[in-house]
Amino acid sequence: MVRAKKYVVKRHFQGVPKREDFDVVEHDLPAIKNGEILVKTEWISVDPYQRAYNSRYPTPYDQFGFQLAVVQDSKNPRFPVGSKVVSHKGWRDYTVIDPNAAPTPIDKVYKLPDLKGLSESLSVGAVGMPGATAYFGLLELCKPKPGETVVVTGAAGAVGSIVGQIAKLKGCKVIGFAGSDEKVSWLEKNLGFDNAFNYKTVDAVSALKQAAPKGIDCYFDNVGGELSSIIINQMNLYGRVAVCGSISGYNEDPDKIPKATMIQPALVAKQLKIEGFLVARWHDRWAEAFADLARWISSGQIKVEEHVTEGFDKVFDAFVGMLNGENQGKAVVKV
Amino acid sequence: MVRAKKYVVKRHFQGVPKREDFDVVEHDLPAIKNGEILVKTEWISVDPYQRAYNSRYPTPYDQFGFQLAVVQDSKNPRFPVGSKVVSHKGWRDYTVIDPNAAPTPIDKVYKLPDLKGLSESLSVGAVGMPGATAYFGLLELCKPKPGETVVVTGAAGAVGSIVGQIAKLKGCKVIGFAGSDEKVSWLEKNLGFDNAFNYKTVDAVSALKQAAPKGIDCYFDNVGGELSSIIINQMNLYGRVAVCGSISGYNEDPDKIPKATMIQPALVAKQLKIEGFLVARWHDRWAEAFADLARWISSGQIKVEEHVTEGFDKVFDAFVGMLNGENQGKAVVKV
Repeated sequence: MVRAKKYVVKRHFQGVPKREDFDVVEHDLPAIKNGEILVKTEWISVDPYQRAYNSRYPTPYDQFGFQLAVVQDSKNPRFPVGSKVVSHKGWRDYTVIDPNAAPTPIDKVYKLPDLKGLSESLSVGAVGMPGATAYFGLLELCKPKPGETVVVTGAAGAVGSIVGQIAKLKGCKVIGFAGSDEKVSWLEKNLGFDNAFNYKTVDAVSALKQAAPKGIDCYFDNVGGELSSIIINQMNLYGRVAVCGSISGYNEDPDKIPKATMIQPALVAKQLKIEGFLVARWHDRWAEAFADLARWISSGQIKVEEHVTEGFDKVFDAFVGMLNGENQGKAVVKV
Repeated sequence: MVRAKKYVVKRHFQGVPKREDFDVVEHDLPAIKNGEILVKTEWISVDPYQRAYNSRYPTPYDQFGFQLAVVQDSKNPRFPVGSKVVSHKGWRDYTVIDPNAAPTPIDKVYKLPDLKGLSESLSVGAVGMPGATAYFGLLELCKPKPGETVVVTGAAGAVGSIVGQIAKLKGCKVIGFAGSDEKVSWLEKNLGFDNAFNYKTVDAVSALKQAAPKGIDCYFDNVGGELSSIIINQMNLYGRVAVCGSISGYNEDPDKIPKATMIQPALVAKQLKIEGFLVARWHDRWAEAFADLARWISSGQIKVEEHVTEGFDKVFDAFVGMLNGENQGKAVVKV
């Protein structure tokens, strides 16, 4: 019998999540049944949507999230002992999984993609759900054309940093907004963004007028709020916006979403199209994104940085640090 | 020589437009040249976009707008004397037009559509630009399916009243918001809306929960502001929003667009698509809309009401009255 640990959210977050909102529960795992596997977690992902979706679930609930794990015992020939699997089983150290039970696409368990020798942690980052989010949100909804100007907010995050680099690969001018001067410098000097700005200190209106004198064609929105209203107000005719998240509002009371300058006048004047999305929409095509992303990263066309926290008992700290913008690149926990 | 009158906007509106913002200028029209026509205006349209676009033009400018006129002199065989033309020449009593000079689609002059004996005033309303706006915005962007729930704001206006009735024709449940109890009653009792609400007095959140227990699939947005945020927040997965206008913000300082609860969280959670549009986008297909609309109106499937003001010197009053919501149905001026 295996003694396992998991993070359980015992009450809804008020503002920034607190350690007391979680219990780390120890429990005995049952012996695996036919079709099932027992896995030991190696990498755990902390992501903004784990904050955003909190109010949707009745407490207590097991904290969901992507993780990479190695199979330790198997009664499923598709996942033999020693093979590695990506699942949405969340913040646990050991898990019994039935790969045939997947009530929604996001619950599907899949084998570690071919990472071409790159770190396996990428399977919960740039070659995982966040990478697919950047890939499909940008390419399917923004549809950037060579020579166009693309703006991304949350640009130094797991998704934003990939979005900007894919847009560069597609021949676009890329402008990023991030939350510190260090991140801005990293985006411009390491990742090849044409311009990056610290949204906390810059006058975004005039910065954009200078950096995007021909206007903005595509906007990949991770933050919402006033910054998004400013960007949308400087878009060109038939501009496209992919709305991935609204981290600016995540720590607020869900019944009191913040106000921002309304975007409808800009939508009409420039005939803009704005689309919100969840990457599970393209779950049956994730492998396609993973193949491209692994190729781009291993060839050096896309650079990936990770913000690694070590230890299962540090997952909460990594989570809150990510929400506070302490990470540059993808925040992951090595178990 | 013909002595003509026109409304000139001599300074930008501050809040509600004032009579002193306009000059009525008398001027002599030149003799028509080859290809030109002289027309006498019969119907003038007052519309919300005449307020909304005010800040885009340097003053002074001639007030634009749709009008129906009869040809009094012609050196253009396509438009013989006595024929009637719809143009965007605005608030004038007599006009010299060169039908071959149309710098943008909206400037194109066209013959009065076949109205099947209906009032010719409809050519600047339900079988004119506002009708085409309702038709294409709803059918091309919202794409309502039978059984779906459609919400329209500004529902008693020129565009909204047609939107709701087309949605009913397409087999949808239709909910409208308007600004008085009289309008609400008209929408429910005369136009066949399933539900209508006075946005000034109703609690929109609970009204929608009751009227649309299965959620909202399509939203035709004429108003923006907090009401739109509330509606968008109750939409279903993959809902579609067509943004036609944002009259709630039109009388504000254009540099100080009002704030409203941000819509990005709902966009992401429900993967909504929102698209702003100008009906000129489909200008080459307006005839298609006019044929359907004239047929639906003459058969009684769509009911049209007009709010008629008489006299060229009353155009300003009709305009401000429309902005203040005094009209039920299309506001037009009989010259």
